[in-house]
Amino acid sequence: MEPILDVVGVGNAIVDVIVTVPESFIEEHRLVKGAMTLIDAERATSLYAAMPPGIEASGGSAANTAVGVASFGGSAAYLGKVRNDQLGEVFAHDLRAAGVAFDVRPAPVGAPTARCLIQVTPDAERTMNTFLGISAFLDPSDIDDAVVESARITYCEGYLYDTDEAKAAIRHAMDVASNAGRLVAITLSDSFCVDRHREEWLELLADKVDLVFANEAEIGSLFLTDDFEAASRQITDLVPMAALTRSAKGSVIMTREDRIEVAASPVAHVVDATGAGDLYASGFLYGLAHGAPLERCAYMGGVAAGEIISHIGARPRVSLGDLVAGQ
Amino acid sequence: MEPILDVVGVGNAIVDVIVTVPESFIEEHRLVKGAMTLIDAERATSLYAAMPPGIEASGGSAANTAVGVASFGGSAAYLGKVRNDQLGEVFAHDLRAAGVAFDVRPAPVGAPTARCLIQVTPDAERTMNTFLGISAFLDPSDIDDAVVESARITYCEGYLYDTDEAKAAIRHAMDVASNAGRLVAITLSDSFCVDRHREEWLELLADKVDLVFANEAEIGSLFLTDDFEAASRQITDLVPMAALTRSAKGSVIMTREDRIEVAASPVAHVVDATGAGDLYASGFLYGLAHGAPLERCAYMGGVAAGEIISHIGARPRVSLGDLVAGQ
Repeated sequence: MEPILDVVGVGNAIVDVIVTVPESFIEEHRLVKGAMTLIDAERATSLYAAMPPGIEASGGSAANTAVGVASFGGSAAYLGKVRNDQLGEVFAHDLRAAGVAFDVRPAPVGAPTARCLIQVTPDAERTMNTFLGISAFLDPSDIDDAVVESARITYCEGYLYDTDEAKAAIRHAMDVASNAGRLVAITLSDSFCVDRHREEWLELLADKVDLVFANEAEIGSLFLTDDFEAASRQITDLVPMAALTRSAKGSVIMTREDRIEVAASPVAHVVDATGAGDLYASGFLYGLAHGAPLERCAYMGGVAAGEIISHIGARPRVSLGDLVAGQ
Repeated sequence: MEPILDVVGVGNAIVDVIVTVPESFIEEHRLVKGAMTLIDAERATSLYAAMPPGIEASGGSAANTAVGVASFGGSAAYLGKVRNDQLGEVFAHDLRAAGVAFDVRPAPVGAPTARCLIQVTPDAERTMNTFLGISAFLDPSDIDDAVVESARITYCEGYLYDTDEAKAAIRHAMDVASNAGRLVAITLSDSFCVDRHREEWLELLADKVDLVFANEAEIGSLFLTDDFEAASRQITDLVPMAALTRSAKGSVIMTREDRIEVAASPVAHVVDATGAGDLYASGFLYGLAHGAPLERCAYMGGVAAGEIISHIGARPRVSLGDLVAGQ
């Protein structure tokens, strides 16, 4: 069968609650700056109560990536779990309105739709505190095999790897994609997330993954080293390809034959780093699905990341396809 | 008793869903541009489905005004009704986080929290479509008499005047305020809203109101005239004071003795007109509660309106008190 989708994303379906705070808020509430910390319902309530007024916008790492792919003009679907509540409706609406296919049935019972309390500090860094709610209970029965088989690339989110149900869902999606001859990609998501799953992930990458996305902290955490060059050489022992992002220093694409460095896109004013990695992945995956050279894939990733960090929120405000047209 | 609050706002408790759309969207979906149209649950669902991805932010006309008063450094409370659902939580959080007292118990049953689907067009005009949900069922038992008695000014929203329960709640709040010797203010809210209630409102203003806020379309609708000057003279037959806003032309304050014109605040780039009237009222009421001359009250209203139209959303992004400090 010819693939009919460029990318299917698999991840935690989350609505972001975004506030801007002074640096002191981070210390006062003992938040882990720049990281994603999992919080329970009680902590979510108390932290929210302490936060200034905010705005709500759909998020979720792999969902942001799927939206980015669609914004480039690609075809994308998403697999993730919401409840049949108001935030679940908002999440589904925003995804579909962005042109991403989303047909996982909202759970009629259980925890509420996930939300991520995001504090943006004056240095544009984002600190994320996620109440996973129902999203962590995506299970293999939620994975539509036909959707996975129809996509050139199945892109899984490391963040999702935190319950037995979700682990099984990811492994199932990867197996279905592999058996259909498709490409399997994963993002390591967060250095603390890598820390929680290091041993399992080293096996998972070697067994099931074709392409890894990671930033410097994540790849360093995977191999327990501060030496980026050493880590970037090690990763291709596990997988054939890795796209490694380095913030303002751009990205490095590692394959077993090549090492390609691409500069970051210039950004006049960085406002909010939320979604930079997600959108980098969208440009890279869109390029890859359309047969672009790796350097071009990395360039498109950089353009998408540059757009997203120039405003609040993790969904693009302009057509990414227009941004790279003619470039 | 000495008043302990500057302003208590009474209105529809609403979460805004804000999207930017091309002009063609307005025609295609037969929306009433620049107005507030009431929609039922079915229309809310179909219109939302047609809308592009959006952001959610707390709104509600009188709630925006209460937040503005607090942003000027004043003390404010709010009376309005939400459900015990996710949007109700968001509404309550944002109001309290902005420093506004809000203690109406969320309804445990009934319609969901209200939402307003707002389309912002490239000309910065906003078109509002409101599903009132539970907010329309604010009733006299939700009005905390002690809060109303403790506020220098009770500010009611014309928008709220659409069910028997809410009409009774407004009339009750006005009576409690009057009996305590406090000032009673109302905003006419919207020209179509005036059209629905013209006869009742002419009586209500004469009987119970000290101060009216209206724009040109609303005051024209009240007296069924296109002649702003004639309407502005007529209004003081009904009430001792009116603050009449004229967009870029600034505002006119009418009393039985005086007519004061104040220019609009200069705005570099108008982005979204949502909340302009609400925030004008916040500056005017803050000034009035603190004994400022009427010209100064109108000036502060203009500064607040200018801040709100320079960005998306109807809640201030900076301290309004700071904006007028030293001016």
